[in-house]
Amino acid sequence: MQRLYFDKTTILGVGLIGASFAMALKGRGISGHIAGWGRKEKNLRTALKKGIIDSYELDPCKACEGSDLVVLATPPGAFPALAKKIRPSLKKGAILTDVGSVKGRLAYGLETLMPKGVYFVGSHPIAGGNKSGIEAADPGLFEGALCVVTETGNTNATALRKVVALWKALGSTVIKMPPEEHDRVYGLVSHLPHLLAYALVNTVADVDESLIGFAGPGFRDTTRIAGSPSGLWADIAVENKKNLLRYIDLYTANLKRLKTYLKKEDRGSLEKDFKRAQKLRERMRA
Amino acid sequence: MQRLYFDKTTILGVGLIGASFAMALKGRGISGHIAGWGRKEKNLRTALKKGIIDSYELDPCKACEGSDLVVLATPPGAFPALAKKIRPSLKKGAILTDVGSVKGRLAYGLETLMPKGVYFVGSHPIAGGNKSGIEAADPGLFEGALCVVTETGNTNATALRKVVALWKALGSTVIKMPPEEHDRVYGLVSHLPHLLAYALVNTVADVDESLIGFAGPGFRDTTRIAGSPSGLWADIAVENKKNLLRYIDLYTANLKRLKTYLKKEDRGSLEKDFKRAQKLRERMRA
Repeated sequence: MQRLYFDKTTILGVGLIGASFAMALKGRGISGHIAGWGRKEKNLRTALKKGIIDSYELDPCKACEGSDLVVLATPPGAFPALAKKIRPSLKKGAILTDVGSVKGRLAYGLETLMPKGVYFVGSHPIAGGNKSGIEAADPGLFEGALCVVTETGNTNATALRKVVALWKALGSTVIKMPPEEHDRVYGLVSHLPHLLAYALVNTVADVDESLIGFAGPGFRDTTRIAGSPSGLWADIAVENKKNLLRYIDLYTANLKRLKTYLKKEDRGSLEKDFKRAQKLRERMRA
Repeated sequence: MQRLYFDKTTILGVGLIGASFAMALKGRGISGHIAGWGRKEKNLRTALKKGIIDSYELDPCKACEGSDLVVLATPPGAFPALAKKIRPSLKKGAILTDVGSVKGRLAYGLETLMPKGVYFVGSHPIAGGNKSGIEAADPGLFEGALCVVTETGNTNATALRKVVALWKALGSTVIKMPPEEHDRVYGLVSHLPHLLAYALVNTVADVDESLIGFAGPGFRDTTRIAGSPSGLWADIAVENKKNLLRYIDLYTANLKRLKTYLKKEDRGSLEKDFKRAQKLRERMRA
């Protein structure tokens, strides 16, 4: 079996995920030179000083020159324009992947944009936490985490195998699925929860902002993801609009049922409803 | 200043909170003998063996005999019947408190039920975690936590002072408020989030239970409280029905607005909406 190694890797967007990925590649000896690109030079300088990247460029095309692996790690809304821009500078044989939380149209669009001999394979590492930015970067971020790798009818088999091997090498459990299946699944277990968390904090704001000072650990956990970057999640929400509209309706139907029980003071039905959730939630711990 | 000390304390309901409270009292030398009562003798025997309580009774009246401090630590739905039952066995001068997450009618009801010379003062320690039961009991559970102590027009000043001193001695920051204010605040920052978390897990169940296997840390945190005991939360929801119905409507209005933005692919308004939540959520960290 050939050893997995990339002579040069380019990270486009050196935030929590991009920086953690770079550190993980370095730590496991999977990449030679790692070049970074981003909108904020200050951030790139910090990444360079910390040894997370080996060089940086202010022009994404320059950053991609000669790279064997290019990773889109900006908010997904920037992917199409960025891919169009770097297209001419991609080396033949290069693999382009991303770490975006939404796939669908974007993944198909990126695939179509690739010049001959350059292959796109989408990735979504299910990792992160309550922090963002390179200060929180962690080479172990992907260890023990799930990573979805997207596969379409046009995916190049060799590139797919390499991208799968890459995430496995970083300690992740890889699941392959088509982009639309990814969005159906993660619309439900990730995008919907983000919207709900933002809506909960905004409901507190509607009533009285200061009441957040009385909140305890339950509220803290429930709304942790409402601290996520608003621009990134606006991108994701718009991209996964179709699934989200359906899920919001299903969710609203659940709330409506709870309201009916509450109005009737139907304690038994409330308990049954909560129990159903409690049991499924407990299965998650295993 | 007189030293805070209770010759005998009774814990009615030896679960996570009741057991942690008993351990904290012991650890700080605030109580002599601690008697326990509960529905499950096996659990009481475990508590006795672990030294969390000094004795147990299967009759709540016997457990309360001669006690200076009696703590209701069962699900709040059981408070009225339990208080009626123990009423005749309460010693003159005793203080009755609770650790329930909902107050309102219950607190006024308990106050009214007290025999002459016995005083009720409600408490709600804002503590807990992802575990329940005595196995998870922790004498440090209340350290650094908030504790709401409820005060009405009829609250006995000496009893109030003692209950406040008690929670402060356990390391909590005490906030005094009337029972109805407690329910207005905690309906929003605790009861509503619980209902929303149950509804989210049930929405996943509506679509496909197995998809929970794809969930990451965001979903895990957001639904942590959906693992909370269903019976307890059915009690709380019914007791705080009035506030919850209002908050569910406010929350649904937030979701409806998000739907409007999504339908129009109005990325700017989505970002603005998320940003509002993100900013308020960030204030929580301080």
